[in-house]
Amino acid sequence: MRRAFCFVFAMASLLVSCQASAKDICLDCHKEKTPGIVSYWSESRHSSEKISCVSCHGGDVDANHNRTATVTASKCGECHKKAFIDHSVSRHSIGLKSGRGCTRNFETSSGQTGCIFCHEEGSSKPRVKTECAMFLAQTPEMQKQGCDACHRVENRCDTCHTRHGTDISFARQPQTCGTCHMGPDHAQLEMWETSTHGVLYRQGKEKSGPSCVTCHMKAGSHNVSRGIATGIPESAELLRKQERAFMLDICSSCHTRSMASRSLEDADMIGKQSSAIVSEAFSLVEELKNEKLLYPSAEERPIHPLFGRNIVTGPHMLYENISAAESIYFRMKQFHYMNAVKGAFHQNPDYTHWYGNAPLKLSLSELKSEAALLRSVDVLKKRLDNIAPSDRSDDSASSDLKKMLRDIIDRRLRGDISEKEFQEQKDRLMKEKGL
Amino acid sequence: MRRAFCFVFAMASLLVSCQASAKDICLDCHKEKTPGIVSYWSESRHSSEKISCVSCHGGDVDANHNRTATVTASKCGECHKKAFIDHSVSRHSIGLKSGRGCTRNFETSSGQTGCIFCHEEGSSKPRVKTECAMFLAQTPEMQKQGCDACHRVENRCDTCHTRHGTDISFARQPQTCGTCHMGPDHAQLEMWETSTHGVLYRQGKEKSGPSCVTCHMKAGSHNVSRGIATGIPESAELLRKQERAFMLDICSSCHTRSMASRSLEDADMIGKQSSAIVSEAFSLVEELKNEKLLYPSAEERPIHPLFGRNIVTGPHMLYENISAAESIYFRMKQFHYMNAVKGAFHQNPDYTHWYGNAPLKLSLSELKSEAALLRSVDVLKKRLDNIAPSDRSDDSASSDLKKMLRDIIDRRLRGDISEKEFQEQKDRLMKEKGL
Amino acid sequence: MRRAFCFVFAMASLLVSCQASAKDICLDCHKEKTPGIVSYWSESRHSSEKISCVSCHGGDVDANHNRTATVTASKCGECHKKAFIDHSVSRHSIGLKSGRGCTRNFETSSGQTGCIFCHEEGSSKPRVKTECAMFLAQTPEMQKQGCDACHRVENRCDTCHTRHGTDISFARQPQTCGTCHMGPDHAQLEMWETSTHGVLYRQGKEKSGPSCVTCHMKAGSHNVSRGIATGIPESAELLRKQERAFMLDICSSCHTRSMASRSLEDADMIGKQSSAIVSEAFSLVEELKNEKLLYPSAEERPIHPLFGRNIVTGPHMLYENISAAESIYFRMKQFHYMNAVKGAFHQNPDYTHWYGNAPLKLSLSELKSEAALLRSVDVLKKRLDNIAPSDRSDDSASSDLKKMLRDIIDRRLRGDISEKEFQEQKDRLMKEKGL
Repeated sequence: MRRAFCFVFAMASLLVSCQASAKDICLDCHKEKTPGIVSYWSESRHSSEKISCVSCHGGDVDANHNRTATVTASKCGECHKKAFIDHSVSRHSIGLKSGRGCTRNFETSSGQTGCIFCHEEGSSKPRVKTECAMFLAQTPEMQKQGCDACHRVENRCDTCHTRHGTDISFARQPQTCGTCHMGPDHAQLEMWETSTHGVLYRQGKEKSGPSCVTCHMKAGSHNVSRGIATGIPESAELLRKQERAFMLDICSSCHTRSMASRSLEDADMIGKQSSAIVSEAFSLVEELKNEKLLYPSAEERPIHPLFGRNIVTGPHMLYENISAAESIYFRMKQFHYMNAVKGAFHQNPDYTHWYGNAPLKLSLSELKSEAALLRSVDVLKKRLDNIAPSDRSDDSASSDLKKMLRDIIDRRLRGDISEKEFQEQKDRLMKEKGL
Repeated sequence: MRRAFCFVFAMASLLVSCQASAKDICLDCHKEKTPGIVSYWSESRHSSEKISCVSCHGGDVDANHNRTATVTASKCGECHKKAFIDHSVSRHSIGLKSGRGCTRNFETSSGQTGCIFCHEEGSSKPRVKTECAMFLAQTPEMQKQGCDACHRVENRCDTCHTRHGTDISFARQPQTCGTCHMGPDHAQLEMWETSTHGVLYRQGKEKSGPSCVTCHMKAGSHNVSRGIATGIPESAELLRKQERAFMLDICSSCHTRSMASRSLEDADMIGKQSSAIVSEAFSLVEELKNEKLLYPSAEERPIHPLFGRNIVTGPHMLYENISAAESIYFRMKQFHYMNAVKGAFHQNPDYTHWYGNAPLKLSLSELKSEAALLRSVDVLKKRLDNIAPSDRSDDSASSDLKKMLRDIIDRRLRGDISEKEFQEQKDRLMKEKGL
Repeated sequence: MRRAFCFVFAMASLLVSCQASAKDICLDCHKEKTPGIVSYWSESRHSSEKISCVSCHGGDVDANHNRTATVTASKCGECHKKAFIDHSVSRHSIGLKSGRGCTRNFETSSGQTGCIFCHEEGSSKPRVKTECAMFLAQTPEMQKQGCDACHRVENRCDTCHTRHGTDISFARQPQTCGTCHMGPDHAQLEMWETSTHGVLYRQGKEKSGPSCVTCHMKAGSHNVSRGIATGIPESAELLRKQERAFMLDICSSCHTRSMASRSLEDADMIGKQSSAIVSEAFSLVEELKNEKLLYPSAEERPIHPLFGRNIVTGPHMLYENISAAESIYFRMKQFHYMNAVKGAFHQNPDYTHWYGNAPLKLSLSELKSEAALLRSVDVLKKRLDNIAPSDRSDDSASSDLKKMLRDIIDRRLRGDISEKEFQEQKDRLMKEKGL
């Protein structure tokens, strides 16, 4: 009780300290131009607490109209201190600290240049730690609509919260989390919805069954990573134990602790077993790479943004201009593995097995078959080379030309070069080859 | 206000003009035989406005009992004139005018023969414009349950509206649109449901967020194609601009016009980029076709309903008896491309990227790998032919027999021929070959 | 009316006969330790009818605390006789009688040993009838979370019903059925939800549209197999007709019987047509097996739990360590076929066609392409062997070693052997080969 009182008192003080001029330069025009936004704000707690437009957006009218001023998480954090700190130490904001997450279009909150998220300090060399190099090959539009629309959660509170209202019921809905936590790469929304937890919730909302926030945002904490022991390396054993114990406390409000513990341990094991299947696939892809059996070869691929003329199968693996074998492997680690592991932690048998384990095993079989085929064709080629060496000079010259031509055609199709540039490049190439 | 009054007055006049004999020949029996239907109608506005069974079904009892009388859109249109006209100019009814949509089982509303939808007038030659040739290889049952169940929207209002009631709330539900607008080929329901728009709607219905009808059936219009600029050729620039402006007016009731405009332009670009990836795949399939590397070859396939003994990779492409390369291409253009483009227009990052862009790129890689493998096997074969030509006559005779036998087996398995016919055909073949 | 009275009377008598000591040894502790469970029970009809903890769990405190006492369906059946009998003759409990379903971890309800579900009586030989041999290669954790979580329905009522409450509204929800009846292997939840039936239900619950229980648990019957004619062999024609008539009675409460009948007959035909496509794939896989073109070969695979060193493509087919051709076939019969057939019976055009028929046909094309490629590589190999026989002894010795090494590496990756065991086995192998 005393704690609750202190909290309310602290919040009240905070609100007072955050108040800004209520007489706002913006409202006169925006009442006409964006009445929806003004109406949302008018009915919000921000309005009644005298948090005005400039409190959040700042007083620089030009910057706002040019969209160079953005309300980032740190601005919200000036008042919502605890939520901001919680968020900052969670995976939701991990791009800010570790270089994870795609940060190409990153807007810094403090005027600091965004370069450091992709480049070594004071250098144009890309940072090796930027795992998001995976996505560097994207167009600006796909980055905006396909990547940033979710990854902006790193420093934008309105990824989950509505913009000008303060009713948190929208953000608390599991479907709000699901706008990002869905689909082939991590289907948490679908897993939960079709698990017993989700069905109970559907029947009677939070009184009846747990939603995302029940287990992952206990008591309103914005550290969504609390209680998740997977991903913590085995060496940090104590931390793993602490996080597991934290989650078991939550489970225990409905289940016996022993039953919950067994269930999470099963999921741990399923994680290890699924990881072993992925590792087997990884080793095979590495073997094929070393045997030079992957098409396109390193020479035939565009330069990798971080590793140059190399076939990259590790965490910085791209998902274009790769071989069929790599494509199978990519789907295994990014899609099927995720379904198996996260399906088990969300107690969803169908995701664990039919969306996870089964396609993992089927894909490994397909990968091995592909490898066997590539190898047997290669053996035939070598045997044939022994009997009757092919005239490589002629052969490769013609195949080089073919490749160069196809490359120019591809670039035109993709819109990298115009029709005119295409004709010029093609003519130049034909002339060079004396054709 | 005056407009609303005019509308009500017009509707009232319409209803009066549509009234038919209230004393209906049908009710006496159908009260007993189909009480559900009669009850739906009794509580409907049709009933209170004296629109009776024969008003819609006509007075030919035999035709109705034999199911040769069908209530098509034009019948509803006699009273619901505006809705019918709107519908007729929309994509929903496009099969009626352009030959799009599968029209094999088409029931004409005016006694006119349906032949003209598939055949050139006065000829048995199939129409090249009938894009639905794609589906011509279907069984009658699959046509009915798999194709027509959705494509009947072309001339049947009860595809969306309930049959004998007049409560339009069923038709207005987004899930009603979703019975067809879902799944691998165009997942609009899923995209919307897991977008912020869908989550807002879920929270507070139409007061809170937009559903299908909010953006695509403004003010109850039945021209569902209004505001959709994609699909309009670039040459018709003015029309494209008009439709885009129409949609931006709708967006503007919640968003700033500039923000909405940027978002739709991003989606335009994602459409172009995705289309370029599909085009690259198309070119590669065409190359493989010209290099005669696709299996089954044109000779080994059943005759294409429109183009005969040819491999068709354009809009009339079939999706059976094709090669693995074509299968990858088909999935790219019919599934992944749709997810990328429609995902972007429905502001769903997961559909845009993970269901769209990523599998598009992965599939293109797989297609290129497949092509490389087919080509390298072919090179080996040619090199081997140079060294030691195979006795083609023997070889191909035996392989021909094998193919013919397999073809007969396939036909039996599919139920095209009976067990008895199979034995006869097999025996005849063996005799012909002197075996 | 009289029937209803009799039923209520019978239930009342039953309840009295089932009463047990209300003074329960468990409550004193469990009020503290598992208050949620006690609270659920306290508010249940069980509590008011004096069905106490020991009535269901028995009085053996140790067995309960050690989790060796389980409340199986037969215990519930002591009071809920009709439900238990219905359940026992339905497919939901089929594992108990026919050996279907994975029964490795089976807990018998009558003290009888569980061996007989997997082994011939009095023998350690596995039963050939145990179709679940398919799943024998699973880890204990995957069995528990991925298999048993659903298949426990065979003898556990709390698979669908909540454990300590007696409110049946949870079990009646379609989403409860959907926790198992969803996903790639049988997506009944998704099919129904996006069919007109599902949309009507969403609009007004059971008053408006049918849910799972409306059609499959008529009048509360727990024989969920009633009315399902598919799966009944054609020879049992009378039974098929009876079941179909049973379902048509249900359909007839909303639809004309003739319309419903036509719709189910269409689905029957779609079942046959889809089955023919799968059979064609099966024949082709069998051919490839006989031509020894599947990789891994029988010798290279782990021993099949039922059929030893053989490639098994029938009902006991595994889905790991198989060839790409078998993987395509597995997806066809387990995923696409199910979507086509069940989609048709649930009146969902998208599942029937786009999730069912289209991928069935595309996959068959891919399988035929794979076969053609394997065969043409094999032809090249044989031609080359004729020209210049390879030194098989050397070749196969080196390839044998490679395979053995890879096998040990695989086992380490999977966690079957420890790092230490791996080193030992590897060293032993190298020594044996004189390396």
